[in-house]
Amino acid sequence: MPIVLGPNQYGKAEVRLVHVDRSTPVHRISDLNVSTALRGDFTAAHTRGDNSHVLATDTQKNVVYAFAREGGVGEIEQFGTRLGRHFTAAYDWITGARVEIEQFGWDRIDVAGPAQDHSFVRSGQSRRTTVVTIDADDVHVVSGIAGLVVLKTTGSEFHGFPRDRYTTLAETSDRILATEVTARWRYTATDSGITGADFARLSAEIPRTLVETFAGLHSLALQQTLYHMGEKVLATFPEVAEIRMSMPNKHHFLVDLAPFGLDNPDSVYLAADRPYGRIEGTVLRDDVPAAPIAWDATPGFC
Amino acid sequence: MPIVLGPNQYGKAEVRLVHVDRSTPVHRISDLNVSTALRGDFTAAHTRGDNSHVLATDTQKNVVYAFAREGGVGEIEQFGTRLGRHFTAAYDWITGARVEIEQFGWDRIDVAGPAQDHSFVRSGQSRRTTVVTIDADDVHVVSGIAGLVVLKTTGSEFHGFPRDRYTTLAETSDRILATEVTARWRYTATDSGITGADFARLSAEIPRTLVETFAGLHSLALQQTLYHMGEKVLATFPEVAEIRMSMPNKHHFLVDLAPFGLDNPDSVYLAADRPYGRIEGTVLRDDVPAAPIAWDATPGFC
Amino acid sequence: MPIVLGPNQYGKAEVRLVHVDRSTPVHRISDLNVSTALRGDFTAAHTRGDNSHVLATDTQKNVVYAFAREGGVGEIEQFGTRLGRHFTAAYDWITGARVEIEQFGWDRIDVAGPAQDHSFVRSGQSRRTTVVTIDADDVHVVSGIAGLVVLKTTGSEFHGFPRDRYTTLAETSDRILATEVTARWRYTATDSGITGADFARLSAEIPRTLVETFAGLHSLALQQTLYHMGEKVLATFPEVAEIRMSMPNKHHFLVDLAPFGLDNPDSVYLAADRPYGRIEGTVLRDDVPAAPIAWDATPGFC
Amino acid sequence: MPIVLGPNQYGKAEVRLVHVDRSTPVHRISDLNVSTALRGDFTAAHTRGDNSHVLATDTQKNVVYAFAREGGVGEIEQFGTRLGRHFTAAYDWITGARVEIEQFGWDRIDVAGPAQDHSFVRSGQSRRTTVVTIDADDVHVVSGIAGLVVLKTTGSEFHGFPRDRYTTLAETSDRILATEVTARWRYTATDSGITGADFARLSAEIPRTLVETFAGLHSLALQQTLYHMGEKVLATFPEVAEIRMSMPNKHHFLVDLAPFGLDNPDSVYLAADRPYGRIEGTVLRDDVPAAPIAWDATPGFC
Repeated sequence: MPIVLGPNQYGKAEVRLVHVDRSTPVHRISDLNVSTALRGDFTAAHTRGDNSHVLATDTQKNVVYAFAREGGVGEIEQFGTRLGRHFTAAYDWITGARVEIEQFGWDRIDVAGPAQDHSFVRSGQSRRTTVVTIDADDVHVVSGIAGLVVLKTTGSEFHGFPRDRYTTLAETSDRILATEVTARWRYTATDSGITGADFARLSAEIPRTLVETFAGLHSLALQQTLYHMGEKVLATFPEVAEIRMSMPNKHHFLVDLAPFGLDNPDSVYLAADRPYGRIEGTVLRDDVPAAPIAWDATPGFC
Repeated sequence: MPIVLGPNQYGKAEVRLVHVDRSTPVHRISDLNVSTALRGDFTAAHTRGDNSHVLATDTQKNVVYAFAREGGVGEIEQFGTRLGRHFTAAYDWITGARVEIEQFGWDRIDVAGPAQDHSFVRSGQSRRTTVVTIDADDVHVVSGIAGLVVLKTTGSEFHGFPRDRYTTLAETSDRILATEVTARWRYTATDSGITGADFARLSAEIPRTLVETFAGLHSLALQQTLYHMGEKVLATFPEVAEIRMSMPNKHHFLVDLAPFGLDNPDSVYLAADRPYGRIEGTVLRDDVPAAPIAWDATPGFC
Repeated sequence: MPIVLGPNQYGKAEVRLVHVDRSTPVHRISDLNVSTALRGDFTAAHTRGDNSHVLATDTQKNVVYAFAREGGVGEIEQFGTRLGRHFTAAYDWITGARVEIEQFGWDRIDVAGPAQDHSFVRSGQSRRTTVVTIDADDVHVVSGIAGLVVLKTTGSEFHGFPRDRYTTLAETSDRILATEVTARWRYTATDSGITGADFARLSAEIPRTLVETFAGLHSLALQQTLYHMGEKVLATFPEVAEIRMSMPNKHHFLVDLAPFGLDNPDSVYLAADRPYGRIEGTVLRDDVPAAPIAWDATPGFC
Repeated sequence: MPIVLGPNQYGKAEVRLVHVDRSTPVHRISDLNVSTALRGDFTAAHTRGDNSHVLATDTQKNVVYAFAREGGVGEIEQFGTRLGRHFTAAYDWITGARVEIEQFGWDRIDVAGPAQDHSFVRSGQSRRTTVVTIDADDVHVVSGIAGLVVLKTTGSEFHGFPRDRYTTLAETSDRILATEVTARWRYTATDSGITGADFARLSAEIPRTLVETFAGLHSLALQQTLYHMGEKVLATFPEVAEIRMSMPNKHHFLVDLAPFGLDNPDSVYLAADRPYGRIEGTVLRDDVPAAPIAWDATPGFC
């Protein structure tokens, strides 16, 4: 019977690692959520329960902690690459790895004296992300940001859409525009020159570019806002080959106050949970080769 | 500058629809979470904010509710197909659609008298799912189950894995095996013969097959359990072309009670949250063409 | 400056314990989430960091696991009482304890052969709860159920409410009524006679009584439904002194399909998330002394 | 049969209100989650389904939106008081109200030009809260902060605790201390002089005092940290009568790297989810009358 094993991967998900660098009195903290997954020849484990190829997920977890001690964490793109390369170098049959890391931000607590050097408060809702994919000799790095919630109280229109039997939405030339940005950008030439300092800088500058473009663009459609945010990133950062964004439209509806004898001049809104608009898109350089494997197993869209 | 729009889609996510069929005194309820997404030529919206091709997500939501009234809901695979075909038929530039539906289960409350006909209690944690993808004239249906939590207190071993510098895990010939199954299976020949009655039957029988195989197989690895669950589904149901499963290993650790002068003969366990094993795999017929588009934008693996 | 320490408690929260009883080939499983908290004289710890009275929360966790081994788990009310009494007996300055336990349900997987004896699937969404409060020599037991979601497609009216400037809601003589019941009932005379077998029986029969009353009562208000559910429990079970219920009104709104040329004869509903009605109430025997301490620190209402 | 209705309340929970003040080109935004609950004589609704006393929860929601338009939102303590007083003034039988408000923070996006006046990014994880309780003529205001996550990499010890048969925890003179602060403080004399400007100032200064005290105090126990944070608030702000804090101990465990031939000099930690320490306490002025009703129905402790 022609039933066979298809694509598969396995690993340890959500290893919570906090690394403290105490090499100076000013402590530095790295707060990470690390997930590893291995790809290769694991057929015997699936078909016969033969684990001779199965590097235990417990061992993968141990590697995460040991590597944090042996070489420090550095930038998450570097840490993910070190982990992925370790796994693929360790055993012949492990031909690929996917390492996903979330980093939670911490700000220093602004107090006088030495406590400032070791006291922190969790910063905003957004978190830095990376997905490093090792595929034989190739390394792909897709970094990003998640949980970046932005809103404009004006400077957003929506009209000119088709109207048919099922259309009831009114056109508007002024609405609240709110979204929670999840962006993932693929770096080019990961192996050939992006340094840790670059990753650090880009992890701050790209989100800033996204936010500033969101703010500055007069929006006629959330799709337009998304595209121009991505285009600006590509135009500004030659290190980026493509960017994928998910920007749900978090609706804010004007409340009808007429039954209470009140007007509502764009003042009082209901912030809705569900349903929400789902707006997803990619902006890319058309002269850079695609790398679909860099996106495999990453929740997203196409 | 060669920066262009890449793949994109948009729609309305998480439209919560409850349909009550009152055509007989015994009411039937369909409790759904519907998400639609359209694909096609939306370039002008992205680059210029020209919405003439943008069927509003609000309109998509209206279609969901109107179609529930016009034709009823039926099986979610049928409802998703009706919705997807409507969108792609409606406008030239809409060449594809993806409709994802979750269905929440309800059991009748077992009381004497007429209240039984209209009173319900939410059933277990698992929910039925489908993803219908329309791609020009093709229709792909990937149905599944999510949130199916199962556990065995014995009949599970794990040994024979490679040991290296980073390995500390002990081998075991008897452990608790627990997982939360997410399974998605792609139907073959969706257009040519699977009826609503078939979908209803398969939505019950396939999960039952998964659960019974989990229970009955003496497990040497969770990968083995996964594979044999999938193989059994394919061997039993010719309607299924491939099945993808995510089965996180929800670890149960034996607690060391020796410090308290107590033994622990497989009696007292700590149920851990994170990290967990991530075990993902596909089982497929090697004589059925692949359909990668059927899986696009579906959270998963490769 | 007259600033002083007020009421306080501390302990270990959410100790996840799974106990397997393998004393017969038919395994039995107890899947618990246990939280302990101690009360007494902990002033020095608060004011000076003197921990000589502070039984470490880590030690409390150890006690949970050790007691599961030493005496088994039994019914959660018994297990909570054993734990609480241990803590208050152990040290003079610990004069009270609060032990909260959630129990997750598992059903046997119905397969032929021995696998049935050790294979389980998580049952429905609801979970059994208890809060045992030790206060010097008194023991209070408040058991309950959480996450019990029920719905009626008819047999619910809502009219006759006051109308004023801010009222827009239409009266209705037929609506969907849906709620998620959280119920907590306080047992009388905990020390004097309720056995483990009683607790087991009551933990099944009281929820069944709640559900059947929900189904059977023609409802004119959710408050009325709540009250009669509680009254029925008190009338049926002399072991219960009082019952508190939280029954949020999970709104199902009829969708206006008129813009699409369609009627909606109680057929198509939008299931809303927020806001929801908040309906909370107590039903009690007026000849049983109140026991406010039994409810301290339990999320709820008054 | 002496079964009676006990304490009860009802209302509308989680009304999501966004108010935009456009009175100047620099827009101001108030993003709130408002829950109302009424208390009084609702016996007939419970026992007979007579709704003549039941101000519909839908009407309560309408009042929230209408009042946002009629008088603006201002500080949440003021808005909650206005709402509560409206309900208790409106009908004889409504003798009390509880209004709970969460406020989500937004920062301006720092861009050049007019977009800065109307573009926002969600600020950190913490949110401002208030609970206003109207009880006949009394008004109680309990404000607070939730979701304030802080961490120290040093300056925290834990030793001197009792050791018994169940104790395994090692003493430590240097550990990571991390917690998520939920603090609620009751204002004195709400009616007699705290202005909107005061509430605005205190809502910023009290959390800052909490954070700075957390950072600055060398900790011997989390209880000590909690107490001194509260004491500092009371010592600094005469407007505060008492403060209750929940500060779960979010454990960070040093990972044992010895099996890999590595030391771990306070460098690599596992951040644990569950179980966690539960540390809850109150600090109060002993010359201010207690106001238990101000805390009724607020999740917490005693």
